Amino acid sequence: MSESWISDRLNAIDASGVRKVFDLAANMTNPVNLSIGQPHFDTPDEIKAALKQAVDDGYNAYSQTQGIAPLREKLQARIDSEYQHADRKVFVSSGTSGALMLSLCTLVNPGDEVIIFDPYFVMYKHLTTLTGGKAVLVDTYPDYKIDVGKVRDALTDRTKVILCNSPSNPTGEVVDEKALRELAELASERDIALISDEIYRAFCYDEPFVSPAKFNDQTIVIDGFSKSHSMTGLRIGFVHGPEHVISQMTKLQQFTFVCAPHPVQWAVLTAMDYDVSGRVDEYHQKRDFMVKELADDYEIAGAGGAFYLFLKTPWGTGTEFVTEAIKHNLLIIPGGVFSSRDTHFRLSYAAEDDTLQRGAEILRTLARKDG
Amino acid sequence: MSESWISDRLNAIDASGVRKVFDLAANMTNPVNLSIGQPHFDTPDEIKAALKQAVDDGYNAYSQTQGIAPLREKLQARIDSEYQHADRKVFVSSGTSGALMLSLCTLVNPGDEVIIFDPYFVMYKHLTTLTGGKAVLVDTYPDYKIDVGKVRDALTDRTKVILCNSPSNPTGEVVDEKALRELAELASERDIALISDEIYRAFCYDEPFVSPAKFNDQTIVIDGFSKSHSMTGLRIGFVHGPEHVISQMTKLQQFTFVCAPHPVQWAVLTAMDYDVSGRVDEYHQKRDFMVKELADDYEIAGAGGAFYLFLKTPWGTGTEFVTEAIKHNLLIIPGGVFSSRDTHFRLSYAAEDDTLQRGAEILRTLARKDG
Repeated sequence: MSESWISDRLNAIDASGVRKVFDLAANMTNPVNLSIGQPHFDTPDEIKAALKQAVDDGYNAYSQTQGIAPLREKLQARIDSEYQHADRKVFVSSGTSGALMLSLCTLVNPGDEVIIFDPYFVMYKHLTTLTGGKAVLVDTYPDYKIDVGKVRDALTDRTKVILCNSPSNPTGEVVDEKALRELAELASERDIALISDEIYRAFCYDEPFVSPAKFNDQTIVIDGFSKSHSMTGLRIGFVHGPEHVISQMTKLQQFTFVCAPHPVQWAVLTAMDYDVSGRVDEYHQKRDFMVKELADDYEIAGAGGAFYLFLKTPWGTGTEFVTEAIKHNLLIIPGGVFSSRDTHFRLSYAAEDDTLQRGAEILRTLARKDG
Repeated sequence: MSESWISDRLNAIDASGVRKVFDLAANMTNPVNLSIGQPHFDTPDEIKAALKQAVDDGYNAYSQTQGIAPLREKLQARIDSEYQHADRKVFVSSGTSGALMLSLCTLVNPGDEVIIFDPYFVMYKHLTTLTGGKAVLVDTYPDYKIDVGKVRDALTDRTKVILCNSPSNPTGEVVDEKALRELAELASERDIALISDEIYRAFCYDEPFVSPAKFNDQTIVIDGFSKSHSMTGLRIGFVHGPEHVISQMTKLQQFTFVCAPHPVQWAVLTAMDYDVSGRVDEYHQKRDFMVKELADDYEIAGAGGAFYLFLKTPWGTGTEFVTEAIKHNLLIIPGGVFSSRDTHFRLSYAAEDDTLQRGAEILRTLARKDG
């Protein structure tokens, strides 16, 4: 076997950033862990009960590629009621990551450009590389706000996709309605596919969630229950958009994911009726707590949603600061994992209150320390 | 939105074959259905109980990308005991389809050639197209036996992968040990990646299963529990091969499948200890029954494993014959879905005995009918 077996696209995906953090963290025992990208709750009992019932009922064989009819109908009704778009169809995907992979493979030719806002969810860049496309980063530092003028300047005749993520991982930024409208209209005007990753939509603390699909009926929306209902390991999500695109994505799903895990699809019928507002309130309080704890020592931007803060290091690069934090038993992620810059760090406040308190103390100590 | 949004790779995947069959079948009520590519049993109760226990135990969040440690260790021990290869590592995939996608994306550059035996599992061709590779078909008609001389003749300096599937879907052919050894040695000699799809390995009726990995320690083996343990809808499988390749596939899994459904991974610990020989015996009997029922009217080749017969039509093309079968309330799949030729049809004997009996009667009637 030779190294040359590995395809160019795989060699082009540099996933070493996260690995370095894991390597750094490997020797930590019982760290103050503010690195986790998922809720710290287990799946609600009602949803677990529905999942177990589906297993008992024998829903363990393949489902239809696009998802079981009752779930598609329930999702479609909700989507139709929200958007009233004539040509908007849904299918059930294997998580939002699966949906992102299918979307980008369906839309992006080698050499096509994908607009991604920096800082970005790390998968966007790697999946663009997978398709042979080119990630074009539009800077949103220091306040993580989308400047649609910058997007316009970044467009070329190879721009195929704009990837929007509000609320954002890693910044917690909730894009304001005016920017979303302008972005949506720009995409429409230039016939560019707008993908809206709305996996954190339940977690908006200061204003109601708005989707760019409200302003652009061709928007491809990626959504799911993993974060809102604590079911990241159950691998289910959904996508809605123009029927022609959805049909191509479903075709590709048939040969890759085949179908979302079948019994989980039945459990999602229950999840759709489960009220997560109590959990969202809890994260709202945790956001408020962390912002208050850190406001004197850190510049805080974004932080309107999801469960992340993306903070400028008080000294050193993101990697240097995180290396020092790890020495103080705090696990956070250097900004370079999510960005072309390594000047920040991400913390997740999806953790118990005492963990947050201890994390905040360490961060204050580090800020007052000379790097 | 314009049609031009769709990428060339998606436009190049023609999945209309299966859709045409579904369209033909759409008006059938209660057909004699011999089209199904999965066992007609539900998942064994012990495995379902283990799955439900894992859900109760809270294994519903992300697992490690490569799979939970206890499962990897148990799989690795079994693999090490079978192969004793120094450099063979395992990871847990989202089904064998997921594993195939990851394998081909990891190995195949645009323009590379993938050797596929015709008739083939339909996904092989489409996934090769997804990577921008070229499927090079090596004919195995009329007896579905692999002629390694033909493989040698088909090799070029762009040949990157040979894809072997024994027992085979759609033919049921179990490749004999001599051909497997020659194929494995040829791949090794020419430094070509050999992928062995062994999802039907439990279903060998006339001789013990042999993996080409026995003769080529660089073989990438794709395996799983979906067919042997009736858990196709639970989306889990595994891959083992050279560590360097497995590590690249795991990197890609991180950005696509993320992880196999977490609670299902725990259930597989139970599945690994579940004895499927009773089920295999049952399919063995069904194979014998169908062969006996059809031997007077159909040429029978392959049929040594899996749960398929791939039979030459007594008259007409595969599509013509299947169209007529559907008029007689029998659902089977035209050979053209699995082949460059449309001269055969596939039937699955993963069905109740009375369904098989009725199917055989219809097939005899059709054979004696003038097309």
